[in-house]
This record gives sequence, structure tokens and C-alpha cells, in this order.
Amino acid sequence: MTLENVGANKSFGGWHKQYRHRSEALNGSMRFAIFLPPQATGDRPAPVLYWLSGLTCTDENFMQKAGAQRLAAELGIALVAPDTSPRGEDVPDDPDGAYDFGHGAGFYVNATQAPWNRHYRMYDYIVEELPALIEAHFPVTAERAISGHSMGGHGALTIALKNPQRYRSVSAFSPIANPSRCPWGEKALSRYLGEDRDAWREYDSAELMRAAEAAQFLPALVDQGDRDNFLAEQLKPEALTAAAQTSGYPLTLRMQEGYDHSYYFIASFIDDHLRFHAQHLAL
Amino acid sequence: MTLENVGANKSFGGWHKQYRHRSEALNGSMRFAIFLPPQATGDRPAPVLYWLSGLTCTDENFMQKAGAQRLAAELGIALVAPDTSPRGEDVPDDPDGAYDFGHGAGFYVNATQAPWNRHYRMYDYIVEELPALIEAHFPVTAERAISGHSMGGHGALTIALKNPQRYRSVSAFSPIANPSRCPWGEKALSRYLGEDRDAWREYDSAELMRAAEAAQFLPALVDQGDRDNFLAEQLKPEALTAAAQTSGYPLTLRMQEGYDHSYYFIASFIDDHLRFHAQHLAL
Repeated sequence: MTLENVGANKSFGGWHKQYRHRSEALNGSMRFAIFLPPQATGDRPAPVLYWLSGLTCTDENFMQKAGAQRLAAELGIALVAPDTSPRGEDVPDDPDGAYDFGHGAGFYVNATQAPWNRHYRMYDYIVEELPALIEAHFPVTAERAISGHSMGGHGALTIALKNPQRYRSVSAFSPIANPSRCPWGEKALSRYLGEDRDAWREYDSAELMRAAEAAQFLPALVDQGDRDNFLAEQLKPEALTAAAQTSGYPLTLRMQEGYDHSYYFIASFIDDHLRFHAQHLAL
Repeated sequence: MTLENVGANKSFGGWHKQYRHRSEALNGSMRFAIFLPPQATGDRPAPVLYWLSGLTCTDENFMQKAGAQRLAAELGIALVAPDTSPRGEDVPDDPDGAYDFGHGAGFYVNATQAPWNRHYRMYDYIVEELPALIEAHFPVTAERAISGHSMGGHGALTIALKNPQRYRSVSAFSPIANPSRCPWGEKALSRYLGEDRDAWREYDSAELMRAAEAAQFLPALVDQGDRDNFLAEQLKPEALTAAAQTSGYPLTLRMQEGYDHSYYFIASFIDDHLRFHAQHLAL
């Protein structure tokens, strides 16, 4: 596998770098960003926090706006931010050019329906291909945590719930918690997976959390702003709370007074998430 | 004066807000952003750090990318970020649409040459109009500090050097330190101020610092990355060092190994600048 370095910036004594590579899972070219803390550029490989971004984002939003690198450098955590979908002229996009489907909106699923199933396999990319690439090419360990925002919060939670053996901890900001029952989710899942709603359950955090058994539990932290414009119609954190109560899942869900859906919200609480993951990554 | 609130995000317990208003100095509509720390929304008015951005930026770059709000909230400093030029259909722009003159490139001068002199009066806007507006409408004190990046570092240094009684301290990242002698500066100053280079001296940090007298000295901190692509041709920090040696100006200029011209560099050292200003703002 060839990685092409397409950007590098020294940051907090470590390095923010961008790479492009050919993805098998996505059948095309992908870009991701990695932040290597100063420790990892020496002789101490770092555990990795994977960050999944929301609708319309690329690898850049989190790296530029979250303010995560300061504390990640201090704690010795590497950060990896993939793009949010396959892209390119040969990758089919929403026919109306909408922001909530297609390019920038892969929803972290393996699409089963044509024409989407040729490229839209973000689930396999995040679960298997990207970590294998990261662990082969960078001074990191196989200790992983995962987090994300909005669509990426949905991705982080579903991926961690389905693969608890691969992560030490999971967190999310403003996740789409119950995509089977919200407009964003219904649009994306019906197109990527088809109209059979049984298939959607595998990509619905609330459904997965309700069905989780104790042996699969991971420490889970979710922050949600109570002034988030998407709260009631799209995000539905109450479905997660109910699911955790049913299964006994170790979920901490915090409603944050006055905060919205923006990166100002993420920046305000990213240090809490980094410290939460550091604790479970045994740092 | 009417301020129109056009954006608000809770951030680190305080508020990031954007406003639009009619500017007398600029003869048109302007937008700025303010971060009010939690203390200032209570009963403790905050001193203000004015941040001047670089070429192509608006009020948003610093607020989204610098990671300044975390420590500003802790220290109790308000942050104000204006746009970098007048804008709008009636504001003349670079005839070739270049990024380094016209819209987004006001250079913090009062233009004397037509057609630029009708709108391009960023110096008066930053020195007089904006602080008067901020101090009349927000819970802040008249204690001010000023900083900026690149073209904005040039703006911060020249404005502080010309108005030492109005600021407690000044800092800059990667400033255009000697614009009379670099391509960006020669292009902008010759158009805004005319071909007489004597007029340029009033807007050249190195020239002003060389001529400064002890009664006008302010504490000054400058950070410059040594891998900055613009270092040798455009920025010329050695001119500042030489000027400070001549006049005895209390300048601390730090060359930072491996850092470039990006906001990753600014984010890496913004906490140092905030603590530097906090010390002189008597916080």
C-alpha cells in the first residue's frame, strides 16, 4: 500500500500530516489526516483516537477546529481523521446535490444497493483498512479509541458497539443516535441499504446499545448541547439513554446547557473526551 | 450605532458572537467577532485582546482555528477579531482578483490614493472606531492588548507602535515586519499610499521600532516559524531584531524550529501570547 504525503505542519511539538492513498474498501482514492504527538516521533509509539466527522466534512474540520492537538500532544495520543465518504468523479453522488447523502455523507455503512455499493463501504474502511494502514506506517500501537460528531458520532458508536474487541473506549458529540427514526438516517439508510428496515438495525446506535450484552460493553461518553438545532428531529439522544437503561450499558450522556451543534461546542469539551479515552488507553 | 447580531455560539462557558454594523471609517458594512469569557457575562468586565488576521482571512479564521478561547475563558480575556478589509460590491478590489490586495487585504492603513481612499481606512477602524464600539456595547474594560498574524502581525505592531498609550502590550505571529521592502508590502503600500516611500514609513514596523523612544515602549512578543515559506522574501523578522537593537525596544522575538505559516503554528503558541498579555493587562 502506497501512502502519498500531501501535507505536513508542525503542531504542538508533533506533526499534523495529510496522506492520500488508494482504498480497496472504497475502490478509489482517499485522504486522511494524522496528528502524531511528540512522543510518537521519538521512541514511544502512541495509542490512536479515530475521529469520524459529520455531514459535509473532510479530514480537515476536526484537525483545524477542535483544538484537540494541544492535549493530545500532552497525553501522547495520536489522532486520525478520515474523510467522510469516498469522493471523485467516478463516485456517484446525491442526484440533487444534497449535503446529506453521497459525497461527504457516507454514514459509515457498507452500502448494499446499486449504484452505491461499488464505493460506499466506509464501515469496512474505518473498521479494517484504515487501522491496518495506520498501524503499518506510523509509530502507533494497536490500542484504539473512537469518537466523532453528528453523523460521525453515529459512526463511532455503531462501529464500537459492533466491534468492542477492537476499541478501549468510545465517545461522541451530538450523535445521530437513532438513524432508523430520523430524516437524515431514513434517507441515507434506505438508499445505501434498501427499504428493508431490518437491515438498518445494524447501523443504529440505539438499537445496538439496547441489544448489547455485558461482555461487549465499552466505556462510553456522549455530550449533547441542549440548544442544538438538530436535537429533536435528527439526533434523539433520549433513544440512547433508554437503550442504555434497558441493557445496562455503561453510557455517560451529558446534556450541555446552551451549546449548539458547532465545533465551538466540540472544542469546549474535547479535553474531557481526550482525558476519558486516555484513562481507558492506560496512559 | 446599531449592531446586528448575526451569529452566536456558546463556547467554553462564554460566548462567541458575530456582529454586522455600518462603519463610518470604512464607509460600508463590516462584520466582526467577539469572544466574551464567562466572567464578562457576569459582573466582571474583561480586558480585550484585539486580533488582526492575515491576507484572505475574515473574522472567522482566528475564532475557529487558533484554539484561543479555552485559555481566554480561563484568564478572563475578551477576544475581538475584525474582518481584514472593507468588502462589498461598491468596494473596489484588486483588478486582477489577486489575494494580496483589495478585499481581504486592507493592510491596516488609511489609503490616500483614489479609488482606495473611499473605503480602505482599516487603520482608523482598528484604532478608533472598533474599540469605541466594543467598549460601548459589551461588558469590557478599556484595557487593551493587540496581536495578529502575517499582514495582521504587521497591523498589530504598527498600530501599537503608533499608539502606545492605547495598549498594554503587543504581540505577533509571523508579521510582515518590513513591508517597505517586500513584494506584498510594496504592492499594497504603493497602491494605497502612492509611490512616495516616505509615506510608507508610518506603516512599517521595523521603521517605527527603530525610531521609537523609551517613553513609547510596550512589551512586545513575536513568534516566527523557521520553516515558514514566506520567511525570507516577505516577512523579514531580522529587520525587527535590528530595529529593536538600535532603539533598545523591549522586543522578544522567538524563532520556532520546524513551524510554518499556518494556524497550526498559531495554535501551538497562542497560550504563550495570552499569558503574556494577561500579565500586562494585570489579570
